[in-house]
Amino acid sequence: MKKILIINGPNLNLLGKREPEIYGTQSFEDYLNVLQKKYTNIVEISYFQSNIEGEIVTKLQEVGFSDLCGIILNAGAYTHTSVAIADAISAIKVPVVEVHISNVFQREDFRHHSFISPVCSGTIVGFGLNSYNLAVESFIPNNL
Amino acid sequence: MKKILIINGPNLNLLGKREPEIYGTQSFEDYLNVLQKKYTNIVEISYFQSNIEGEIVTKLQEVGFSDLCGIILNAGAYTHTSVAIADAISAIKVPVVEVHISNVFQREDFRHHSFISPVCSGTIVGFGLNSYNLAVESFIPNNL
Amino acid sequence: MKKILIINGPNLNLLGKREPEIYGTQSFEDYLNVLQKKYTNIVEISYFQSNIEGEIVTKLQEVGFSDLCGIILNAGAYTHTSVAIADAISAIKVPVVEVHISNVFQREDFRHHSFISPVCSGTIVGFGLNSYNLAVESFIPNNL
Amino acid sequence: MKKILIINGPNLNLLGKREPEIYGTQSFEDYLNVLQKKYTNIVEISYFQSNIEGEIVTKLQEVGFSDLCGIILNAGAYTHTSVAIADAISAIKVPVVEVHISNVFQREDFRHHSFISPVCSGTIVGFGLNSYNLAVESFIPNNL
Amino acid sequence: MKKILIINGPNLNLLGKREPEIYGTQSFEDYLNVLQKKYTNIVEISYFQSNIEGEIVTKLQEVGFSDLCGIILNAGAYTHTSVAIADAISAIKVPVVEVHISNVFQREDFRHHSFISPVCSGTIVGFGLNSYNLAVESFIPNNL
Amino acid sequence: MKKILIINGPNLNLLGKREPEIYGTQSFEDYLNVLQKKYTNIVEISYFQSNIEGEIVTKLQEVGFSDLCGIILNAGAYTHTSVAIADAISAIKVPVVEVHISNVFQREDFRHHSFISPVCSGTIVGFGLNSYNLAVESFIPNNL
Amino acid sequence: MKKILIINGPNLNLLGKREPEIYGTQSFEDYLNVLQKKYTNIVEISYFQSNIEGEIVTKLQEVGFSDLCGIILNAGAYTHTSVAIADAISAIKVPVVEVHISNVFQREDFRHHSFISPVCSGTIVGFGLNSYNLAVESFIPNNL
Amino acid sequence: MKKILIINGPNLNLLGKREPEIYGTQSFEDYLNVLQKKYTNIVEISYFQSNIEGEIVTKLQEVGFSDLCGIILNAGAYTHTSVAIADAISAIKVPVVEVHISNVFQREDFRHHSFISPVCSGTIVGFGLNSYNLAVESFIPNNL
Amino acid sequence: MKKILIINGPNLNLLGKREPEIYGTQSFEDYLNVLQKKYTNIVEISYFQSNIEGEIVTKLQEVGFSDLCGIILNAGAYTHTSVAIADAISAIKVPVVEVHISNVFQREDFRHHSFISPVCSGTIVGFGLNSYNLAVESFIPNNL
Amino acid sequence: MKKILIINGPNLNLLGKREPEIYGTQSFEDYLNVLQKKYTNIVEISYFQSNIEGEIVTKLQEVGFSDLCGIILNAGAYTHTSVAIADAISAIKVPVVEVHISNVFQREDFRHHSFISPVCSGTIVGFGLNSYNLAVESFIPNNL
Amino acid sequence: MKKILIINGPNLNLLGKREPEIYGTQSFEDYLNVLQKKYTNIVEISYFQSNIEGEIVTKLQEVGFSDLCGIILNAGAYTHTSVAIADAISAIKVPVVEVHISNVFQREDFRHHSFISPVCSGTIVGFGLNSYNLAVESFIPNNL
Amino acid sequence: MKKILIINGPNLNLLGKREPEIYGTQSFEDYLNVLQKKYTNIVEISYFQSNIEGEIVTKLQEVGFSDLCGIILNAGAYTHTSVAIADAISAIKVPVVEVHISNVFQREDFRHHSFISPVCSGTIVGFGLNSYNLAVESFIPNNL
Repeated sequence: MKKILIINGPNLNLLGKREPEIYGTQSFEDYLNVLQKKYTNIVEISYFQSNIEGEIVTKLQEVGFSDLCGIILNAGAYTHTSVAIADAISAIKVPVVEVHISNVFQREDFRHHSFISPVCSGTIVGFGLNSYNLAVESFIPNNL
Repeated sequence: MKKILIINGPNLNLLGKREPEIYGTQSFEDYLNVLQKKYTNIVEISYFQSNIEGEIVTKLQEVGFSDLCGIILNAGAYTHTSVAIADAISAIKVPVVEVHISNVFQREDFRHHSFISPVCSGTIVGFGLNSYNLAVESFIPNNL
Repeated sequence: MKKILIINGPNLNLLGKREPEIYGTQSFEDYLNVLQKKYTNIVEISYFQSNIEGEIVTKLQEVGFSDLCGIILNAGAYTHTSVAIADAISAIKVPVVEVHISNVFQREDFRHHSFISPVCSGTIVGFGLNSYNLAVESFIPNNL
Repeated sequence: MKKILIINGPNLNLLGKREPEIYGTQSFEDYLNVLQKKYTNIVEISYFQSNIEGEIVTKLQEVGFSDLCGIILNAGAYTHTSVAIADAISAIKVPVVEVHISNVFQREDFRHHSFISPVCSGTIVGFGLNSYNLAVESFIPNNL
Repeated sequence: MKKILIINGPNLNLLGKREPEIYGTQSFEDYLNVLQKKYTNIVEISYFQSNIEGEIVTKLQEVGFSDLCGIILNAGAYTHTSVAIADAISAIKVPVVEVHISNVFQREDFRHHSFISPVCSGTIVGFGLNSYNLAVESFIPNNL
Repeated sequence: MKKILIINGPNLNLLGKREPEIYGTQSFEDYLNVLQKKYTNIVEISYFQSNIEGEIVTKLQEVGFSDLCGIILNAGAYTHTSVAIADAISAIKVPVVEVHISNVFQREDFRHHSFISPVCSGTIVGFGLNSYNLAVESFIPNNL
Repeated sequence: MKKILIINGPNLNLLGKREPEIYGTQSFEDYLNVLQKKYTNIVEISYFQSNIEGEIVTKLQEVGFSDLCGIILNAGAYTHTSVAIADAISAIKVPVVEVHISNVFQREDFRHHSFISPVCSGTIVGFGLNSYNLAVESFIPNNL
Repeated sequence: MKKILIINGPNLNLLGKREPEIYGTQSFEDYLNVLQKKYTNIVEISYFQSNIEGEIVTKLQEVGFSDLCGIILNAGAYTHTSVAIADAISAIKVPVVEVHISNVFQREDFRHHSFISPVCSGTIVGFGLNSYNLAVESFIPNNL
Repeated sequence: MKKILIINGPNLNLLGKREPEIYGTQSFEDYLNVLQKKYTNIVEISYFQSNIEGEIVTKLQEVGFSDLCGIILNAGAYTHTSVAIADAISAIKVPVVEVHISNVFQREDFRHHSFISPVCSGTIVGFGLNSYNLAVESFIPNNL
Repeated sequence: MKKILIINGPNLNLLGKREPEIYGTQSFEDYLNVLQKKYTNIVEISYFQSNIEGEIVTKLQEVGFSDLCGIILNAGAYTHTSVAIADAISAIKVPVVEVHISNVFQREDFRHHSFISPVCSGTIVGFGLNSYNLAVESFIPNNL
Repeated sequence: MKKILIINGPNLNLLGKREPEIYGTQSFEDYLNVLQKKYTNIVEISYFQSNIEGEIVTKLQEVGFSDLCGIILNAGAYTHTSVAIADAISAIKVPVVEVHISNVFQREDFRHHSFISPVCSGTIVGFGLNSYNLAVESFIPNNL
Repeated sequence: MKKILIINGPNLNLLGKREPEIYGTQSFEDYLNVLQKKYTNIVEISYFQSNIEGEIVTKLQEVGFSDLCGIILNAGAYTHTSVAIADAISAIKVPVVEVHISNVFQREDFRHHSFISPVCSGTIVGFGLNSYNLAVESFIPNNL
């Protein structure tokens, strides 16, 4: 069975609580349950969240040379400020897909630039929580 | 049955011929056949390509108030220069998903800005031709 | 009798259908009828619309050395991106007045720059469809 | 009878004297006479000129909640430097139309930006003194 | 016999009519006749002109994999705005030489940047219509 | 008894009248009465308002070498454009505290820069009319 | 009794030790004692300091939906670089007041921009340690 | 006898009082006396100072078509912000020489740009009060 | 015996594993052993690595007032984004030398700027792992 | 017989030795021999090379009022930094054609700007050493 | 007797020959004669010209610690590009006055910035050759 | 025995004389003596200094294909302006190490950019004259 890790960055633990007009009212844990059930026996989906840039770097390093087939990363605010996370993605072997829930290109100018996009294998933006599901699909080419 | 239109912009008719190290060696028509077969009885996928900016505007206007459930647009070079296409997307009712075959964020600076992203419902970048398939999936929420 | 040509650029054929909160609900053809009636026996007002940048260039060339007393041009999105249309205006003899329906200076930054303004004889912005009427008046100095 | 106030900013009192190749040789007072005569019994046109930014602010405040149907403002050099005048326009009730005699977009770069355009209801540029007359017309919709 | 195609972009069909102080008074067709005669039995020179960006893209694609030894492209205004034409040049096999009649570096700032230069094999600027002749010579190395 | 002068710049005389969603509905005079009463026997608070940049400069010069313990300055629009007021503040002896009623950092980009902040002893932004009261407190260290 | 939390960012634990010509010689703990005593029975003031961006994010999340009446945040260097902290402030319910000890506008250019100011309810800059006291006062409107 | 007018802008009335490490300790009136005595019977030197931008505009207009042989202008802070004063200088006949007491190029970046320099006949910077004397000399070519 | 601390920032723990074409194939621990042996009895070299910006700040604070003769800092990605680390360096007494393994000036633009360089006593770039050894030498002036 | 001078700037004396993947392996002297032979009896081609900016200025001055029909200048690195050479070209009578061996528009950003292009009569870029030959041709209009 | 050295940079040896509409028709040597005669017995004026940046640096070093009372420097094009000359001026003891014949602020943008102004004791611009004479006067305070 | 050449650029011949607060009071020749003695029998250190950019280019070319093991270059002011020196470094075989005496990153903005850094094998900044010694060490890997 394929293995995927979802990594969420800062403030994504507030999903459902934070600015629901932008991010919706569902918590990420609830959504993750649905996703894991849907892919039972196909993909094993694990999850990590941290508000600390360096912990995301460390997690990427820990799993980056493992048997994961892919990492799904929503780096939240660090998307726009973290060279360290981008460097970690470059350094590891496991491919990383970048996702965003909202359409970041409709928001403040500083959210239009991502340090992470150029080092990811692909980017999925603006489909709400379905961005994660599309990212899972991207790692199952036979499904596509 | 759901209906989706794929619109390809300039030079995408050269796919398979043009810079294969960036865009691969498969022609888009071949790929489209595979895609249409896969979604037989689920989604009717039609296709339009033009090298002319204004013809893409006109096509978006023609289908933009129809019963299409979605448009998949790879505007190619016009992504970075066309306010007219962006305005057409804003003007119509049918939602548009932006796709790119290559990771545009790894290429020249002028390819990092898209006039189209802010007016699309979502953006999928860098998955090769699978970007189109992921976009199709995005219009079938039950599949996700 | 004086002759004027109105040229509308991309997406202005959607007037009345497109973003009515910005552009109002009247179609341009309806408005044109009213305008033509008002100036019966004073000015003959003809009309051309295209979504294609190069067709606007060609039209400007065709009529640019004729007996028209003026051209009223709303280049829409091409206002902000087309050096080709600006060059055509510079190249021809008939004076061109630039009009915009909405106040472009209240909208996105990229709408604040016009390649066309420096080569037009005048610019009228923000009076709704009345911008066209004011432009007609500008070609009838005795009326002013 | 409708009432309109024309406000002219710095150096416009030199009209006819100053750089005639740009601004023509007629004084504004002469032009105003012609304009007032033309609109006798239709519009009462009054006039104010000041070289002092703050006096223009004060005048806008004084008349900005009155029964004027509109203000025509040529802020001259303050167009490009005055947030204070722009704030006054935002603060008042009477709509303001911005006019310029010359085509400011053909001149120095710093004349291409107007703090005032985004807060005016419309802008008329480049018709010589007729810019004022077109602005008067813009306040008489039945005339249009 | 070698074959060369000359492609001219928007407004170059007005040559001889348009701004003669910049572009001279000779029409391009007249000049082409002279050029073709001069190279009779050496180079077969054909010609294409369009005001439409996408038609230039299409023409480049059509001839770009043929037995032409070279294309001479004066993209006119599209030089400064067209990523689509630049992408077409990158995509094809036949080498393209960029020419300009006037010294674009003496004119407006936006004419100092060319999207096309980096993908052409060479650039010739400022020799009047002789720029085309020098470009023809560049494809006849034995002549040089 | 300590003495403080409050100086208000352009359009602040419209408080209560102007854009109440940003500035509230209370006039400054009403607020000043409340403030003066609260500090009776502690601080004598006087007041000056002008729409004219140079009059604010002159007032700062007049009082800037007096026995005032401090000046509270809301320069309004001149905050963003006036080097002259900043120079006056640098030139005088009495310390100046800058206040703003609204959160200027949430508004247009040109309101994010203040020529005045670097020459003031402190800045208080965004507390509504209470910004003035906090500024008064800043001059009564024993109170703090 | 009202409750306020003061959050200090990186290097503010060195207060009294670090660059005394900018920040003074008093440690923050000493100052906090004085402040807590002054507001005994009026406001309960608690304190948190961290050098780690993500820990400040986490703390803001933990207390951001509690019965605190306000948070006083001196994010130190993260003021200028942290989108994550700004996002946390946007996400929570408790209002945040930004303070700075020194006049940041007199220092390096990169200290003139704050990601945090636009999402705070107010900003107080340059009053030395009294900036914190003024911020406390801002949460006690009856005191003002 | 030749006539010259010296115009000083904002805060120059504080000379001798204001930042003596930059501007010295002599008042301008004292210096003017010395200057006038030195040129008795050669040049009649009059003087005008204002803190108000528009009054400087008005003064330039009043004397700008007179028998003055020259104007010496130290516009102070308005040097860097006033298009209105620059326009007045362009509009008048009498030549204007720009002077600065301090070396503005050693100070803040915003003092490196002068709206006034391009429209003056010459500029003299950094000679202390002697800048004015050199400017007087510049109007007496026989002296040079 | 002199004491030196080497601090490595994010992803430098991957040395030998990460992008060997840029950083070589030796792990830092192996290199450190060699270095420590070489300086036995001359310099005691200790080592700290963290992926977390704030932990590097804390470590700098902890050792920054000790008997260390110097700190060698390779802040990795934080070089380009961390004001907090720069502030910590400014705040402490022990001098810091900045090192980089690769020539950062040959890489992406965002790696050309260092927040840390201006507050370090010296910078050594591009000598591979020998950059650290040169930094050690810089703290042994008698050796030089 | 016509006379032409070729001037080469810094490092072009290394041709054949320097970066052969960019500049080829032929020395300029060898190439010059071929060129001179080809034009025997038609054009007398002389040659000057210097690494010193000012010597190129001096050479341009020396020959700039002579009977040369043209100068061919490859200013090398000084193309991008030398106002002095550009000024010399403006100052002299003999027309100058700018050449570059490589396609400078494909290289570093700072090589995309030429101080020299706007003052030359034409520019030829990217044809290898044939750029010089094309430049020679440009001075023999009868040949073209 | 006082001693002054005039240093002229590149192309100023062409004075009288070069662009007479900007620089006049008098050679500098002619002018120098007049100047030297005028100041016989008052100031000994010597002269140096070079087209080579480094020779100007060397000359400044040679005379910069001598008994000269001042240097008058017109660095010509090097004004805008030479950090080396600016560094030499900073390094020496003798004060340097910068002069320009034409009004550089009316010319190309790159002529608006001077590396030399901030390190000179004063700057005189735009008085034709009289700029040199004014500079001489600036070194004779008793004359002023 | 290894051979190293030290090249110093403009104004470094003034060392000990020039701005001692930045560069110290020792002349470079004195320092060189010490350095040469220290490396007797290990490295032969020769020296070249020039104020002329092109002479440094020529020297680099002369020695750049010799048996030198390395060049130590302090290009002084040309660091920030010379593409020609950077091109010479790229063109030659002998590796070049860039050194600076002062911490250039603490000085004016224009000193933060080096054209030379990207083409050198390493850069050493801010160690006073010891920067040269560290550079010597960098060429003796066995020493490190």
